[in-house]
Amino acid sequence: MITSTSNKQVRRIAALQKKARLRRAEGVFLAEGIKMISQANPDWIRRIYVSENFWSCSENRLFVEQLQKNHLDISVEVAADHVFEAMSDTVTPQGIMCEVSCPHYELSPLLEKAEIPRLIILENIQDPGNLGTIMRAGEAAGMDGVILSQTCVDIYNPKTVRSTMGSIYRLPFLYVDSLSQTIAWLQKRQIPVYAAAPAGVCMYDEPDYSAGCAFLVGNEANGLTEEAIRAANVTISIPMEGEIESLNAGVAASVLMYESYRQVRAYRAKCGG
Amino acid sequence: MITSTSNKQVRRIAALQKKARLRRAEGVFLAEGIKMISQANPDWIRRIYVSENFWSCSENRLFVEQLQKNHLDISVEVAADHVFEAMSDTVTPQGIMCEVSCPHYELSPLLEKAEIPRLIILENIQDPGNLGTIMRAGEAAGMDGVILSQTCVDIYNPKTVRSTMGSIYRLPFLYVDSLSQTIAWLQKRQIPVYAAAPAGVCMYDEPDYSAGCAFLVGNEANGLTEEAIRAANVTISIPMEGEIESLNAGVAASVLMYESYRQVRAYRAKCGG
Repeated sequence: MITSTSNKQVRRIAALQKKARLRRAEGVFLAEGIKMISQANPDWIRRIYVSENFWSCSENRLFVEQLQKNHLDISVEVAADHVFEAMSDTVTPQGIMCEVSCPHYELSPLLEKAEIPRLIILENIQDPGNLGTIMRAGEAAGMDGVILSQTCVDIYNPKTVRSTMGSIYRLPFLYVDSLSQTIAWLQKRQIPVYAAAPAGVCMYDEPDYSAGCAFLVGNEANGLTEEAIRAANVTISIPMEGEIESLNAGVAASVLMYESYRQVRAYRAKCGG
Repeated sequence: MITSTSNKQVRRIAALQKKARLRRAEGVFLAEGIKMISQANPDWIRRIYVSENFWSCSENRLFVEQLQKNHLDISVEVAADHVFEAMSDTVTPQGIMCEVSCPHYELSPLLEKAEIPRLIILENIQDPGNLGTIMRAGEAAGMDGVILSQTCVDIYNPKTVRSTMGSIYRLPFLYVDSLSQTIAWLQKRQIPVYAAAPAGVCMYDEPDYSAGCAFLVGNEANGLTEEAIRAANVTISIPMEGEIESLNAGVAASVLMYESYRQVRAYRAKCGG
């Protein structure tokens, strides 16, 4: 059992919680709580950390042993309660966390699998909770993937991981170096790119998304860059009453994704798909 | 100038930041930052507090003096920077906050003003950020008001006030003692109430909302109570792909409000309204 907060592993975990660069270098991220661990693909789990208190409950041990049954290589480390607290990102830790391998996705196979490809492209999203919310709503709205600019917050940020509610394991995503190049690549494959912007050429519910679409959503405070807007096929706006200047980025993305999902569902119902 | 954190006014403000009961008893709430203050109806502002540093900038003084010009009864208190920090709810305070009178709305006049009445009813929403997001999206989607159960988080919670982005001044809202009674009251006035629930009778985009509607949205973890569901006219579901169990409450409410707004806009366009 690990009893000291100055233990090497403990310091490594604490650093993984805080540092995106370290997570990237090691190709791992952390997931906390029974729910987040039970949703993970066991093949992705490298190691499990539990608190002494968590481990003292037989039901909890059973949960971990079940996981290990078919995955003998998942090791378990027990840490004293105060040590576990130092490793955790939450104020009241559940007493279990795991190290998960970062998945790697590519765009081509993603699109090949999609019957009606629908993507969301995020430029410079900064709030970890917003990104998590977009992942969660994106899976629910049946999107095929999320494309992120390198300027977006790290998707493996503990707060983002938590707020995805497990979507991080299921909804494909990838960071790209150049949004314009990716947009051009999508356009070549007949996927129109719609940039969400104030004073857009049309309202978000006017285009026909039933043959596929990619929505481009920008930074919380500044919206999309001029470059991103120029690269898109058309700008669309979400109408707003009152004196509201903008919607929360997670809400805006969700409204767009659900409108495309609504159209696709209507299209499928009509075509008996 | 206030120089001590044990000053009576300072302790009162610090208590107002934390205690919903005190805010209710005094009928005031706090709003921080230039943006939140400039959006407030000046008639509602009782007093302004500024930090020494904020007050040392002539542009800032001008902003406050402009406010006072037509509202001579708005008093200004200057506090030493460390005192202001103790009064503020934010980590990096902007150096200005104000005490605002809580508005009072009633349902009847709200509905009389509405051509196509659209409301959102919240039961036991607990997250301050979610409530703020719903207010912000609600104003944008042109809703006429927000009805809250007494079990909802306090709308004057500083985090909620911030995340409304000013909607708290513009979108009417009221807490009611009995949701069932309010729902019955709405139904008597021909406003159908749609309860968002898993396995609803129909999908959220099937009903015709263009004659008015009230959406009933429940607690983040547990959804709506049986009692609330029974009181509603019909249950509606937001479809979800993947393995997502539920949407974020702010996203769910926004998807519903924007669907009703989409229908109303389409209806108005058709009728030339």
